[in-house]
Amino acid sequence: MRDNEKIPDSTIRRVSAYYRAVSDLVAAGQPTASSYEIARRSGATSPQFRKDLSLFGNFGKRGMGYRVAALHEELKAILGLNRRWRVAVVGAGNLAHALSEYREFRRQGFLIVAVFDVDPGRVGQEWNGVTVEHFDRFAIAARTGAFEMGVITTPAAAAQDVADRMVEAGILGILNFASVKLVVPDQVTLRNVDMAIEMESLSFALK
Amino acid sequence: MRDNEKIPDSTIRRVSAYYRAVSDLVAAGQPTASSYEIARRSGATSPQFRKDLSLFGNFGKRGMGYRVAALHEELKAILGLNRRWRVAVVGAGNLAHALSEYREFRRQGFLIVAVFDVDPGRVGQEWNGVTVEHFDRFAIAARTGAFEMGVITTPAAAAQDVADRMVEAGILGILNFASVKLVVPDQVTLRNVDMAIEMESLSFALK
Repeated sequence: MRDNEKIPDSTIRRVSAYYRAVSDLVAAGQPTASSYEIARRSGATSPQFRKDLSLFGNFGKRGMGYRVAALHEELKAILGLNRRWRVAVVGAGNLAHALSEYREFRRQGFLIVAVFDVDPGRVGQEWNGVTVEHFDRFAIAARTGAFEMGVITTPAAAAQDVADRMVEAGILGILNFASVKLVVPDQVTLRNVDMAIEMESLSFALK
Repeated sequence: MRDNEKIPDSTIRRVSAYYRAVSDLVAAGQPTASSYEIARRSGATSPQFRKDLSLFGNFGKRGMGYRVAALHEELKAILGLNRRWRVAVVGAGNLAHALSEYREFRRQGFLIVAVFDVDPGRVGQEWNGVTVEHFDRFAIAARTGAFEMGVITTPAAAAQDVADRMVEAGILGILNFASVKLVVPDQVTLRNVDMAIEMESLSFALK
């Protein structure tokens, strides 16, 4: 397998889509599938699918199609989904609450094990078995290895400060929902979820 | 401009990224920018940026850079963001609540004007000036032109039925947050937000 650093984000997104398509085939009990079928279900082309997979090794035999169950396990391992990831959410508002109930997170192995806020009205609340803690306790919890990833769901104005404190506490993966561009050091992986982007592809289509 | 139908989704996503980069330049008061600078801020390359823009017309002059304010207006129009879109959300849970507070939606012109649910405990609640209505009232409201887009934030099991009823009521753009693949007729534009995909690119990087 090539060094992770060299694989572009766009490829990882497509691998996520292949993984979903193959998960559907597993659920449907289909034993084998062609690259054409998997690509079509993923919104990609068959040559693109084969090229993307080739970055990670040799899967399937030419003309034989892919063994669905085996490919499913391979894609899971490529994406790092063959283990549990413990996630801390900072900003205990409605979005954090929605994420804590978001089935797909749990299904993919992302467990929200801690929620932090600075609002005394929120600290101490119980959410699906997790007690909201004061953000002052974040660094200690992170340094004891309580979680590996951080999710930021604070207002935009607070997000960079939260990211800085996550980085200081040794967090290497951050998912940001706040509508602001954050700066983190190179060794930290930052992803932004911008829900308006999907709306924009609707307005583009409807206009 | 070419027919919208022929522009791939991946291009629209990049145009959204260019629009954000150029919005930042407007906010910073920068009068002109090179294709290199805009592309770099968007996570694209300069040739890609020029190629994408060329699909929509001629902007800027070779060697002169782009006039930031004019390009901002052009991109806004391309994305259909130079107007207001009225949006109905179905499923009045935490995610819907978070969306109704999501600044970026309002900033881009997406106004949540109606929220529907079937739970009598939720119907009648007031959210940022919108009263949660029973989903039985959806079709009437849609047919009177109260909104143009629908957002689905129901549990997965209910999502296809909601989508079907949106389509029957004449809605042509649907944004789906439920973790399930929906089927809609060709004339309807469907976008799915899968928040776990961003988490997967974190787990890929950290594994």
